[in-house]
Amino acid sequence: MITPPLPLPALAVDALVRAALAEDLGRAGDVTTDAIVGRAAHATAHLAARQAGVVAGLDLAEAAFRVLDPDVVVERACADGDRVAAGTTLATVRGRAHALLSAERTALNLVGHLSGVATATRRLVDLVAGTRARVVDTRKTTPGLRAAEKYAVRCGGGWNHRFGLDDAVLIKDNHLTVAGGITEAVRRVRAVAGHTVVVEVEVEDLAGVEEALACGVGALLLDNMPPDLLAEAVRLVDGRAVTEASGTITEATIAAVAASGVDLISVGWITHSAPALDVGLDVVVERPALD
Amino acid sequence: MITPPLPLPALAVDALVRAALAEDLGRAGDVTTDAIVGRAAHATAHLAARQAGVVAGLDLAEAAFRVLDPDVVVERACADGDRVAAGTTLATVRGRAHALLSAERTALNLVGHLSGVATATRRLVDLVAGTRARVVDTRKTTPGLRAAEKYAVRCGGGWNHRFGLDDAVLIKDNHLTVAGGITEAVRRVRAVAGHTVVVEVEVEDLAGVEEALACGVGALLLDNMPPDLLAEAVRLVDGRAVTEASGTITEATIAAVAASGVDLISVGWITHSAPALDVGLDVVVERPALD
Amino acid sequence: MITPPLPLPALAVDALVRAALAEDLGRAGDVTTDAIVGRAAHATAHLAARQAGVVAGLDLAEAAFRVLDPDVVVERACADGDRVAAGTTLATVRGRAHALLSAERTALNLVGHLSGVATATRRLVDLVAGTRARVVDTRKTTPGLRAAEKYAVRCGGGWNHRFGLDDAVLIKDNHLTVAGGITEAVRRVRAVAGHTVVVEVEVEDLAGVEEALACGVGALLLDNMPPDLLAEAVRLVDGRAVTEASGTITEATIAAVAASGVDLISVGWITHSAPALDVGLDVVVERPALD
Amino acid sequence: MITPPLPLPALAVDALVRAALAEDLGRAGDVTTDAIVGRAAHATAHLAARQAGVVAGLDLAEAAFRVLDPDVVVERACADGDRVAAGTTLATVRGRAHALLSAERTALNLVGHLSGVATATRRLVDLVAGTRARVVDTRKTTPGLRAAEKYAVRCGGGWNHRFGLDDAVLIKDNHLTVAGGITEAVRRVRAVAGHTVVVEVEVEDLAGVEEALACGVGALLLDNMPPDLLAEAVRLVDGRAVTEASGTITEATIAAVAASGVDLISVGWITHSAPALDVGLDVVVERPALD
Amino acid sequence: MITPPLPLPALAVDALVRAALAEDLGRAGDVTTDAIVGRAAHATAHLAARQAGVVAGLDLAEAAFRVLDPDVVVERACADGDRVAAGTTLATVRGRAHALLSAERTALNLVGHLSGVATATRRLVDLVAGTRARVVDTRKTTPGLRAAEKYAVRCGGGWNHRFGLDDAVLIKDNHLTVAGGITEAVRRVRAVAGHTVVVEVEVEDLAGVEEALACGVGALLLDNMPPDLLAEAVRLVDGRAVTEASGTITEATIAAVAASGVDLISVGWITHSAPALDVGLDVVVERPALD
Amino acid sequence: MITPPLPLPALAVDALVRAALAEDLGRAGDVTTDAIVGRAAHATAHLAARQAGVVAGLDLAEAAFRVLDPDVVVERACADGDRVAAGTTLATVRGRAHALLSAERTALNLVGHLSGVATATRRLVDLVAGTRARVVDTRKTTPGLRAAEKYAVRCGGGWNHRFGLDDAVLIKDNHLTVAGGITEAVRRVRAVAGHTVVVEVEVEDLAGVEEALACGVGALLLDNMPPDLLAEAVRLVDGRAVTEASGTITEATIAAVAASGVDLISVGWITHSAPALDVGLDVVVERPALD
Repeated sequence: MITPPLPLPALAVDALVRAALAEDLGRAGDVTTDAIVGRAAHATAHLAARQAGVVAGLDLAEAAFRVLDPDVVVERACADGDRVAAGTTLATVRGRAHALLSAERTALNLVGHLSGVATATRRLVDLVAGTRARVVDTRKTTPGLRAAEKYAVRCGGGWNHRFGLDDAVLIKDNHLTVAGGITEAVRRVRAVAGHTVVVEVEVEDLAGVEEALACGVGALLLDNMPPDLLAEAVRLVDGRAVTEASGTITEATIAAVAASGVDLISVGWITHSAPALDVGLDVVVERPALD
Repeated sequence: MITPPLPLPALAVDALVRAALAEDLGRAGDVTTDAIVGRAAHATAHLAARQAGVVAGLDLAEAAFRVLDPDVVVERACADGDRVAAGTTLATVRGRAHALLSAERTALNLVGHLSGVATATRRLVDLVAGTRARVVDTRKTTPGLRAAEKYAVRCGGGWNHRFGLDDAVLIKDNHLTVAGGITEAVRRVRAVAGHTVVVEVEVEDLAGVEEALACGVGALLLDNMPPDLLAEAVRLVDGRAVTEASGTITEATIAAVAASGVDLISVGWITHSAPALDVGLDVVVERPALD
Repeated sequence: MITPPLPLPALAVDALVRAALAEDLGRAGDVTTDAIVGRAAHATAHLAARQAGVVAGLDLAEAAFRVLDPDVVVERACADGDRVAAGTTLATVRGRAHALLSAERTALNLVGHLSGVATATRRLVDLVAGTRARVVDTRKTTPGLRAAEKYAVRCGGGWNHRFGLDDAVLIKDNHLTVAGGITEAVRRVRAVAGHTVVVEVEVEDLAGVEEALACGVGALLLDNMPPDLLAEAVRLVDGRAVTEASGTITEATIAAVAASGVDLISVGWITHSAPALDVGLDVVVERPALD
Repeated sequence: MITPPLPLPALAVDALVRAALAEDLGRAGDVTTDAIVGRAAHATAHLAARQAGVVAGLDLAEAAFRVLDPDVVVERACADGDRVAAGTTLATVRGRAHALLSAERTALNLVGHLSGVATATRRLVDLVAGTRARVVDTRKTTPGLRAAEKYAVRCGGGWNHRFGLDDAVLIKDNHLTVAGGITEAVRRVRAVAGHTVVVEVEVEDLAGVEEALACGVGALLLDNMPPDLLAEAVRLVDGRAVTEASGTITEATIAAVAASGVDLISVGWITHSAPALDVGLDVVVERPALD
Repeated sequence: MITPPLPLPALAVDALVRAALAEDLGRAGDVTTDAIVGRAAHATAHLAARQAGVVAGLDLAEAAFRVLDPDVVVERACADGDRVAAGTTLATVRGRAHALLSAERTALNLVGHLSGVATATRRLVDLVAGTRARVVDTRKTTPGLRAAEKYAVRCGGGWNHRFGLDDAVLIKDNHLTVAGGITEAVRRVRAVAGHTVVVEVEVEDLAGVEEALACGVGALLLDNMPPDLLAEAVRLVDGRAVTEASGTITEATIAAVAASGVDLISVGWITHSAPALDVGLDVVVERPALD
Repeated sequence: MITPPLPLPALAVDALVRAALAEDLGRAGDVTTDAIVGRAAHATAHLAARQAGVVAGLDLAEAAFRVLDPDVVVERACADGDRVAAGTTLATVRGRAHALLSAERTALNLVGHLSGVATATRRLVDLVAGTRARVVDTRKTTPGLRAAEKYAVRCGGGWNHRFGLDDAVLIKDNHLTVAGGITEAVRRVRAVAGHTVVVEVEVEDLAGVEEALACGVGALLLDNMPPDLLAEAVRLVDGRAVTEASGTITEATIAAVAASGVDLISVGWITHSAPALDVGLDVVVERPALD
């Protein structure tokens, strides 16, 4: 049994979809459709993947149609997280033709973008199968879409790093410079951060690993280390902290990184640079019914 | 003299940046920085491109720092639309250290994403240099970022297609099916659309071109036509309408498409699938001053 | 068959109505109705025109009642755009009495204002019947109500000019002064405006008409020209651009302006100075049922 | 000494102006001005009345320019509430040329609309000079602009009735029908309304006046009574409650109504149907400076 | 028959609940419940008072559950304003288990807070039973919750003072200092405030009472007067104005204050310092059904 | 050296203050002050504690004055987190008199509420001094004020538990019932929650402690255990997890609970039931200057 990914909260689905529709409809609405398609006409549309990939965002697509036609009927042919072949129907939508056509681009932009993130994630996840390494995201997300993109990462089999600056501590090089070192930086954080705040420190060499472990931090960000140094660091840590590798991870290099035994491999480009999955809407219009 | 691109409206800059900061800061703010960096400490930071590309979004980056420190001083080393080499400093930012660190990711996410769009656009624009073809964007944009991404397209030397469903008419295949043909579809649109609304029709063959021209439309979307058919269509149109080619345009194929003589080549992936440009912030911290 | 006017987008209807209700209900709600009318009481109300005119805004009125009583039943007796005599019932509303009374003023303010715009527009449209001239609106609208007022203009048989500063170019006298002339102004605009952006230029004499035509602009704003000069301009243009007359158009003068052969006559006061149509709500209360 | 009208709250000024600018600038901003006017160019503009009237809304106009150019300098030549002749300069604005041109229509729409309300009010106020009658507004306001229009009424020398359903009780005919009479309606209201809530009752004859007075209400709405009946009612009331006349008050009839001795004459059309005052912006552009 | 308290407007209920849920769910939603409870599982929950008190806010609690599960069924076992013993079930909620668990804290925070206000109010109201004194609230409310807390005061049998700075005039000591005395302060207010605005003045001694009465004010705020001075003031006023006592009213002192014959006793702490009523949610989970 | 509490993010300060001012000013603004106090008058005001306590919220107070008068000058006499005696001046504010009077209540409501939370927290913190126990807050906060109240807890020397349902896992009794036990519940959470998400489990007896420890959870919520059982649990845990005691903690019982050796004692009433600290504003008005 596969655990379904944690869902995107319903309030976020609603807010995102309404904002996206408003952005596309502007002040005057869909002039083309409103001029051509009668308000009473109905149609059926198939949401389909034009490329192979992993699906994410079907709730958002459905919501886009439903906002413009509350009576729309949507039948899902697959679920978020499913791998699909090119040509796969994802869902069938029946409702007012004008709503289907006016919401089409909004629905496709959302599903295409998030499925792109899920697909890129899944590719990396597959490449590290059999190791203990999990693929995790970063805060390098598209402004306004962080929760949605992190949901898409989950759909692709990846895991989420922190959602923002406020829900975990990550002490980076600049912080270390200010504090004057790992020990002092961790001390300052410990003086104010509560028990639900995991503390992670960026380290660049084994001395840093040792110092951070001595502070009892929860996780180590092993930045830009080659695989053999990573492996050494993992041995040194010996389970006393979560180990995270980061820095220019590609499809070509991720397997070697994973082989080092790290717990996590964080990758920024699965959210900021994943190409959209090509998803389309095939509208079946029966002329007499439609107009 | 190069015309600077039309700017992104200031109200949009402000709204986007505040929403992005709020998304990252969450309820509790930047725990790491707030714990480690004193409120009075100052620092200098260099915003720099780590890759060659075209810059877009410096106003947004500057606004991100300014929202958290109204007294920040920003010196631009280049302007949106500039081509830069890897390592180029884009701007220098001086201000409160905690503001620089807390706004860093928001600023980078915005500049990285938009510079990615500008860079992808510029690459295509360069490939059609010497032809009459302009590279234009589509409505396949990231939800919430349409105006910003279309600004980035302009920074890359591209041109904007319509901004939404409301500011131009684009009659597509589904509309044609409903209306029963080009002539009837255009008639319905003409019956309601004002004189500032350009009417464009998607056509798939030369018969469609002829029918649309007979209707006096302003532009023709020549969808998925091979270059030689495009050339034939352009000859047939003979300047009576704007011609737009679209459909799976790549860096490999765009020159051939442009050679057909079309006015516009529209490309969805410059907005929905352009990888982010790698942009970083180098913070220069002087320990005594900082803390 | 009469084409129905392009609708006001549903998202705009919802946003307008909720804001208007919130403005009227304030912090404490409808103290009078809440004190006097039981929550379970039902009533029937007739929305009726007290004056002859053209109806606009029934969707907004219905939405006002529905927000306060989701189970309200509304039967339309006429449609937006209909001409009605004084005393005509526009719709019948059945639902909770307190919702009808609390939403009454909001519904009437919306329908009254928009029907006023539609009625003023229709009067001008009728006066130019038989000519090619269309009555068009301007950006001289009530802040916050532009899309709604432009919808009302459509209900009155008028046509919409641009919806904002962003969806068409209109080069006015101040722009011409800055640029130093029509040719240079158009050149600057052409250097940045895409193919969906119609370019219109304000001209004050025949020399201006010639210069603008030479630039190939899409439309000419013939500002404050007397009818015979307009006629001369129209002859000069000879169909090469859309011609728009503007400037102190009244019910007394519009026919003469239209006789000049211009395509469009733009009138600011149909949106900024049209008196509201007197619309009322007659609530039929059956005492035992109500209380 | 003339008391200045109570101001429109600053938070409301800011919110109104930003919403109005956003409505006009849309997604792409002011394409015409951005294409033609350099970002560094400065200009001077004179805000001037083209018609005689009473001014209202200068704070809003100033805010519109200031939002787009924080360094704008505005010199007021008159104040809200002033009567001005046609051609009077209201204020002089110096700042960035593009900001002046882009905010022009928003500023004019706000000042024109509110000055129209103030002017219509002032005309009625002058017609009742020498009587005890005050001209008061109603809730028949333009949705979204209630506080602003009520401010304009004050600028015109008028007085404000309640601002919404929540800040005073007005028992109307429908409420009376539900309650079964004045005495019972007032009893229900008294059972729940606090001491800061003035209770006013609509009455249609002298019996109603007597019944309402017996209940000790604060004000009587004498609806649609002819002047002599009004006078009789006023005598009957004898200062025991505020008397308000309403119902189809015109410039022709208001003096006679006022002569009846009523305290207040409420007029809906000063807010819902006052024509805008013609206000314009004359931009002084010095070519070399501007571009 | 007991009059039910004036309701909290439905738009306010909706806005408050959605904001509160968004605040609790954050970016990632309810991780615990989403991980453990299947989306299809149903449950029943009993909302119950753990302490004796007066209930307020059941609409808000119901709305919290309904936003997350539109199909939830809620049976009320009591109504806002009811006195309940410890252990009393307030309502039973049936719906999706995950919605019940995710909305639980939001619902409880709202009902607990408002019931606390109602309970504190009721205790004071009971202590003045048999006198003419009403317990009234102040503007010393929790930011964001004024209308809700004033509703809770009504549920507890108390009365509302003004809802904000805009719906009544209250001339306090600082205003008197600026104006130079009661007579001048009232004159200034009368010069601008309409007939629906009740004028109340703070007085500190009998001379102040006399001066204020001479001005004909509607209400007197007798601040920090001992009971015997209050009684003297009440006799002096003799029904010519509403009398309000204020200043460090406690459960120990309120009866004596009420015995002075004042009309109103205003108490800030019933809104700013009332402890929450302990309200809990008992979820009945049937294991097979749930998961 | 005392570490200052982590600040409340500036964006939250601004949003809270503007919403609170808008709530108080309503549609018409501060009628009393606007009528009485000239716009040019200046004044000085002292923000002072009327009771002994701990201060929290000075940034919010300052922002309230600054929104209404951008030129206000505020001198802090103490800082958030300071213990102050009754009568202590917290800050001195100089600026426009009308702004000081109109913002007074908003500023006081915010500082009074948050200082009340800080004061209640500090009292408990002092009672556990010398033990390892930290006082922590809960999600039992006032809707809309969670981040602010948690900031106030920090000002009082307390520590923050999770900020919402999304930033840590807390498995409670209802979740355990659904899952069928601790081990299965933790398994389900582990299957989806990332490495920055601390997992805490509510346990009711020592068997639960053992089972939870075996699952390797980060924290144990020891609910409603008597002190001696708590001590036994702490011994059993032996540092392998954070221990948190909760359930009807009072000033009378907290020392005994702390003596058990637990790490955390969570208390809901410091946020939901702390009485406001009495804070006032003394306005020094110099008559000639003011008016």
